[in-house]
Amino acid sequence: MKATAELQVIPIGNGVSVREEVTRVVALLTAHDFLVETHASGTNIEGELNEILAAVAEVHAVLHREGSVRLVSYLKLETRTDKEPTLAGKALRNDG
Amino acid sequence: MKATAELQVIPIGNGVSVREEVTRVVALLTAHDFLVETHASGTNIEGELNEILAAVAEVHAVLHREGSVRLVSYLKLETRTDKEPTLAGKALRNDG
Amino acid sequence: MKATAELQVIPIGNGVSVREEVTRVVALLTAHDFLVETHASGTNIEGELNEILAAVAEVHAVLHREGSVRLVSYLKLETRTDKEPTLAGKALRNDG
Amino acid sequence: MKATAELQVIPIGNGVSVREEVTRVVALLTAHDFLVETHASGTNIEGELNEILAAVAEVHAVLHREGSVRLVSYLKLETRTDKEPTLAGKALRNDG
Repeated sequence: MKATAELQVIPIGNGVSVREEVTRVVALLTAHDFLVETHASGTNIEGELNEILAAVAEVHAVLHREGSVRLVSYLKLETRTDKEPTLAGKALRNDG
Repeated sequence: MKATAELQVIPIGNGVSVREEVTRVVALLTAHDFLVETHASGTNIEGELNEILAAVAEVHAVLHREGSVRLVSYLKLETRTDKEPTLAGKALRNDG
Repeated sequence: MKATAELQVIPIGNGVSVREEVTRVVALLTAHDFLVETHASGTNIEGELNEILAAVAEVHAVLHREGSVRLVSYLKLETRTDKEPTLAGKALRNDG
Repeated sequence: MKATAELQVIPIGNGVSVREEVTRVVALLTAHDFLVETHASGTNIEGELNEILAAVAEVHAVLHREGSVRLVSYLKLETRTDKEPTLAGKALRNDG
């Protein structure tokens, strides 16, 4: 089942800057067969639902193995049956 | 890896009331080997990370099969290495 | 306009445990004319929309003043015109 | 207090497509003194915390006035005291 998603991972206790860990998350996601689009509040993903969910588990395992003690992730998932969900299909331009 | 989570599933296009679908989600989650605690903004879950993620995929598949055209899920996930994450451990009482 | 909400505040950089800050958040919310229900993934609130939003700004200001350097909040808001939104009206029991 | 935010508004019961309402939300946000960046999972905002929160209340009021019966909003807010929060400062490039 195809899905679109947004993932934001917050390491708690790693210090005020989490750029290193977030960069790692994006690299892990980009290694999958996804369309990945980063933005200021997270990373948008287009791919197979099961693979996106498996990637989330991988992110938690890798970040813990690399030293993060506590991780909170926020995952938005969208699936639909009337048409294939795509990031392009959901994006709006703000020409206001 | 043990995890705590919160899942909120929003069917889009099913009508103003989504009680039936949300009740179905809770029933699907409760069939797993999780500790499940419902509340007004979603359902808290305590269990194995991979099984929680698999249950989310199952919820999307079942709700679509039962007629929902479009689903958006909001999943909060927490894992930690310093101690086992539990719903009881995270809850605060508000005696204010 | 009446609303229900869920607020979760994550201090980034304060250390692995954020119990002290979260307890402070609940105390600040409880001082308002809200119905407040804490749970493992955040705090549910029932009250006036504008007052809930003002309380969120207050939480950020107070926690910063008391030493938190970086705060991320996740706020779910619900309003409706067909009936008054209440926490009781949204809660489901999981008797599975 | 300066803040960055992400807002996603979900009308429940308006039908499967919510493009019209989401376009309206972006127009309302763009009328404020914010930096606004839309993406597939919501709209990122940079501006004053109180004005962002007031804009969220405005969005709910306007969409209800224009016919939406039930609205759920997901708002991520970030504030910090070590430097000014900006969308540019939070964005990562995924050159993976």
